[in-house]
Amino acid sequence: MIGKLSLNQATTKYWTVEQAVDGCVRAGIGAIGLWREPVAETGLDAAVRLVRDAGLRVSSYCRGGFLTGPDEAATLDDNRRAIDEAAALGAPCLVMVVGGLPPGERDIVAVRKRMAQRVGLLAPYAQEWGVRLALEPLHPMYCADRAVLSTLRQALDIAERFPVDAVGVVVDAYHVWWDPEVHDQIARAGERIASFQVCDWILPLAEDALLSRGMMGDGHVDFRALGRSVAAAGYDGDVEVEIFNADIWAADGDDVLATMVQRYREHVAPVEVG
Amino acid sequence: MIGKLSLNQATTKYWTVEQAVDGCVRAGIGAIGLWREPVAETGLDAAVRLVRDAGLRVSSYCRGGFLTGPDEAATLDDNRRAIDEAAALGAPCLVMVVGGLPPGERDIVAVRKRMAQRVGLLAPYAQEWGVRLALEPLHPMYCADRAVLSTLRQALDIAERFPVDAVGVVVDAYHVWWDPEVHDQIARAGERIASFQVCDWILPLAEDALLSRGMMGDGHVDFRALGRSVAAAGYDGDVEVEIFNADIWAADGDDVLATMVQRYREHVAPVEVG
Repeated sequence: MIGKLSLNQATTKYWTVEQAVDGCVRAGIGAIGLWREPVAETGLDAAVRLVRDAGLRVSSYCRGGFLTGPDEAATLDDNRRAIDEAAALGAPCLVMVVGGLPPGERDIVAVRKRMAQRVGLLAPYAQEWGVRLALEPLHPMYCADRAVLSTLRQALDIAERFPVDAVGVVVDAYHVWWDPEVHDQIARAGERIASFQVCDWILPLAEDALLSRGMMGDGHVDFRALGRSVAAAGYDGDVEVEIFNADIWAADGDDVLATMVQRYREHVAPVEVG
Repeated sequence: MIGKLSLNQATTKYWTVEQAVDGCVRAGIGAIGLWREPVAETGLDAAVRLVRDAGLRVSSYCRGGFLTGPDEAATLDDNRRAIDEAAALGAPCLVMVVGGLPPGERDIVAVRKRMAQRVGLLAPYAQEWGVRLALEPLHPMYCADRAVLSTLRQALDIAERFPVDAVGVVVDAYHVWWDPEVHDQIARAGERIASFQVCDWILPLAEDALLSRGMMGDGHVDFRALGRSVAAAGYDGDVEVEIFNADIWAADGDDVLATMVQRYREHVAPVEVG
């Protein structure tokens, strides 16, 4: 087992849950971050059995959120189902990508207020089921279309309104590495840190900006510095590698995991948390 | 004259200084933001005469910066020459794009310290020549390769170490619209605001991320809200339209200025500063 390393399923997008679980076992990776779509394809009960039988930890469940649109009832209902699934899988947290500006809306202050209110409407349900809502600030590049939650400071300003076991934050190196406040805000976060994810900022940006992420060591992110701060803040959970990248998706899954393990040891493990 | 509207020369990239000055006069635009490269092509003295004879205000000079690289002496020398040119042109400020991470460097904290120190080495010279260094936070999308200065808070933390007439900040809507703190930091900035620039955040991102900017009204930015805050902070300078966009560059310059005037009136002018 390679310490706290976890495979986020998005890194091997074309693997089923079964393939990803088997791949982790072959590579000696002890944890996995699961996504709703492949879990639905496998079937929730089957997915639960697969990870349990393999003895894997489920480090996170991806993802809930998209809270900013006009249909509040449907949004909340969908998120409650995601919480149910996360609870069944034994995931400690549901990663929340909060959503961007709805079409035609430019009043970002109002959209952010609405988003925070809806986090509040979900928090008691999440707490009851033992699944933390993990608010994920996304890189400001995605503010208009993916997440109006843009910094750790902003995420913590919201999370701190709720019990610590109900709402936490994700520290994703890709999204926060540029933030002049990142180390201060990680220290502030403390036990609010629900997930630590790593992948690298590489240039030029991919034609689809969503797929611009790179393997650790291929880009500009100082993982050692971020890892030190996350560990100093008391986080001892898993470290997920989550890479959206068409070239990595096209590569052989076992090769990707082997590279991931090597790069994790080289760039992240010296400051391994936990 | 259309109030405080200014054409930043980058919007009409293929126009010479003479063409841009003439275009402003034809369109009734009273101010222009000049760039070093076209000014060098025209010749500094000729450029000074052109803007003076046309009765235009020079709203800014673009640009200095790129302070993060290994050759400090050459960097400072080049910036001093830019200050000289800005003074000759009567520009109130030199826009500073501070530079990204030098090749191979991942310690962004150290690079940012170096950048701030070099601002300090230039500030007395700028003050002496009556040209404010206008620190421009760039969108975090450009942090690795263009500017490790990413937020207004960070820019003000540096600017406030120096006299207010030596170092100010640029509020560029494109770069700061996503920031949850933007209105608070604009209020904090007060008379530190050296320049207010507008253009829109449009999606999808262009293949060259530098050219992703759009005409006001084509994207997601709430210019009215930003303009209100900038005016409330006491800024009464010009409002520059600065758009890097291949389609706009390919269009007829007079048409671009006509659209710019119309969009300025529609989206920005109701909260016009000054």
